[in-house]
Amino acid sequence: MLDLLGTATFAVTGALAAGRKRMDVFGVVVLGCVTAVGGGTLRDVILGNHPVFWISDNIYLLIAALAAVVTFLIVRYHRIHTKVLAYADAGGLAIFTIIGFRHGLDVTGSYIIAIVMGVMTGVVGGMIRDVLSGEIPLILRREIYASASLCGAALFALLHYFQVPGTWSVITAVLTILIIRIAALYWNVSLPLFRLKDSQEID
Amino acid sequence: MLDLLGTATFAVTGALAAGRKRMDVFGVVVLGCVTAVGGGTLRDVILGNHPVFWISDNIYLLIAALAAVVTFLIVRYHRIHTKVLAYADAGGLAIFTIIGFRHGLDVTGSYIIAIVMGVMTGVVGGMIRDVLSGEIPLILRREIYASASLCGAALFALLHYFQVPGTWSVITAVLTILIIRIAALYWNVSLPLFRLKDSQEID
Amino acid sequence: MLDLLGTATFAVTGALAAGRKRMDVFGVVVLGCVTAVGGGTLRDVILGNHPVFWISDNIYLLIAALAAVVTFLIVRYHRIHTKVLAYADAGGLAIFTIIGFRHGLDVTGSYIIAIVMGVMTGVVGGMIRDVLSGEIPLILRREIYASASLCGAALFALLHYFQVPGTWSVITAVLTILIIRIAALYWNVSLPLFRLKDSQEID
Repeated sequence: MLDLLGTATFAVTGALAAGRKRMDVFGVVVLGCVTAVGGGTLRDVILGNHPVFWISDNIYLLIAALAAVVTFLIVRYHRIHTKVLAYADAGGLAIFTIIGFRHGLDVTGSYIIAIVMGVMTGVVGGMIRDVLSGEIPLILRREIYASASLCGAALFALLHYFQVPGTWSVITAVLTILIIRIAALYWNVSLPLFRLKDSQEID
Repeated sequence: MLDLLGTATFAVTGALAAGRKRMDVFGVVVLGCVTAVGGGTLRDVILGNHPVFWISDNIYLLIAALAAVVTFLIVRYHRIHTKVLAYADAGGLAIFTIIGFRHGLDVTGSYIIAIVMGVMTGVVGGMIRDVLSGEIPLILRREIYASASLCGAALFALLHYFQVPGTWSVITAVLTILIIRIAALYWNVSLPLFRLKDSQEID
Repeated sequence: MLDLLGTATFAVTGALAAGRKRMDVFGVVVLGCVTAVGGGTLRDVILGNHPVFWISDNIYLLIAALAAVVTFLIVRYHRIHTKVLAYADAGGLAIFTIIGFRHGLDVTGSYIIAIVMGVMTGVVGGMIRDVLSGEIPLILRREIYASASLCGAALFALLHYFQVPGTWSVITAVLTILIIRIAALYWNVSLPLFRLKDSQEID
């Protein structure tokens, strides 16, 4: 259930990105779906998990397409509250990170790879969305977004290592990601930026 | 045979896109090949079809590279007729959609996945081409392009379901895609665009 | 060992590209890792080599992340010498091309595919880096970069065909790529560019 909620939220962010570029309804659906399933698809392809998750179960694609179409229709008649969306998106990030972590751990048994897979599942959909709509991926630029996912995944690895029961560790990790991400949004925090000595330029 | 014609046409569109950005001859060949085989490669990788089609049969890469080099040479001495190219490209789209559909159906047995694979095979090469040449993918923006592929794939699914003999359903689906696409080009039709209430902006 | 040196060098170029766009420390690490392992990952996924190389051996990701972090720190206090970097990058290109060639030949037994896999392993990381930082991939535009990789891979195929002993052919091919690349940098050579008849434009 949470899984599908995450899928829908990500599809909405994809549809809105498509809207910012004045794409047509098909572009909105495609960008919605790609944002929602992109991260999990790359994870499954890299892990060699075949068939990939949205082929084994059509519900993901259907939910994503539906969420995109509903977004396309709703924004014609209602104002959108970007804050609500940002919070929902943080929820999607948290859920997808944990799902990706578990897939990675099941297949490889390595905590490092599981963390990488968790972050990948959480953020790659958004990166493809940004590239396809002609932007530099936002998550690379300034916000504490992928870093929240990384912290949550690392904490989840720790809890798993100390054999904390599944449900508790999921709740802890999800809350950690949510709190870091929402705190970053609220106080507008960012990580240290790349800075060169003097006014030196890189060619 | 038709298959190779589609490959060559897509390679030409890739080579021209490379030309628009004044790339060198190697860039032209790479972008030609990526446009021609990109969609099918993603399809095979997602379906877990190994080896991917251009590894099992080198002819695809050779045809694509050849078409790109010929384009590179020909445009130095002749004007190009973009109309002829757009029609040929519509043909490539139609053929690739049907091929992708069949692969998808063979592997998964699901009509929905087969339609997704058909559209993916038809349009992803062009999307990669646009991203690599620094553009927002055209097909996401305005033209009825992917939508033509979608209609054809859906019709093909219907014909397959009612067990219409193979040859007839291929011809019908290919013609449908061609007609929709060429009609869209001719009358300059587009799908409804994303529109927000009032002059609201999305941040 | 050479392998890890190539990985580190590519990670440094990714980190510097991230720096040019003023990304934060996490963006720097992600772009460094993606540049370092992107080419090999695509190669393994297309060849169906599972698990991909950085899952079987964590050292690649660790080296890449470390190199990116060190770059992030060092450029705050020291000027970077882009020439040294360009030469090191040429070394990385040469090593990755040969590694990719060998994987391709082992899996498919085809020289053409092995050459494609060699070039792909050498250049795709840099292409993803450029796309994610919002640039048209440099290697498609002007420099003799991928072409150097192509020449080296083709020569390596020839040497392999005539059964020249492994070590000698590796040294010859690596030196060929290095010399072509460094000569191109030194004399600022480029391949023929795409040129249209008259002042014709492509729409």
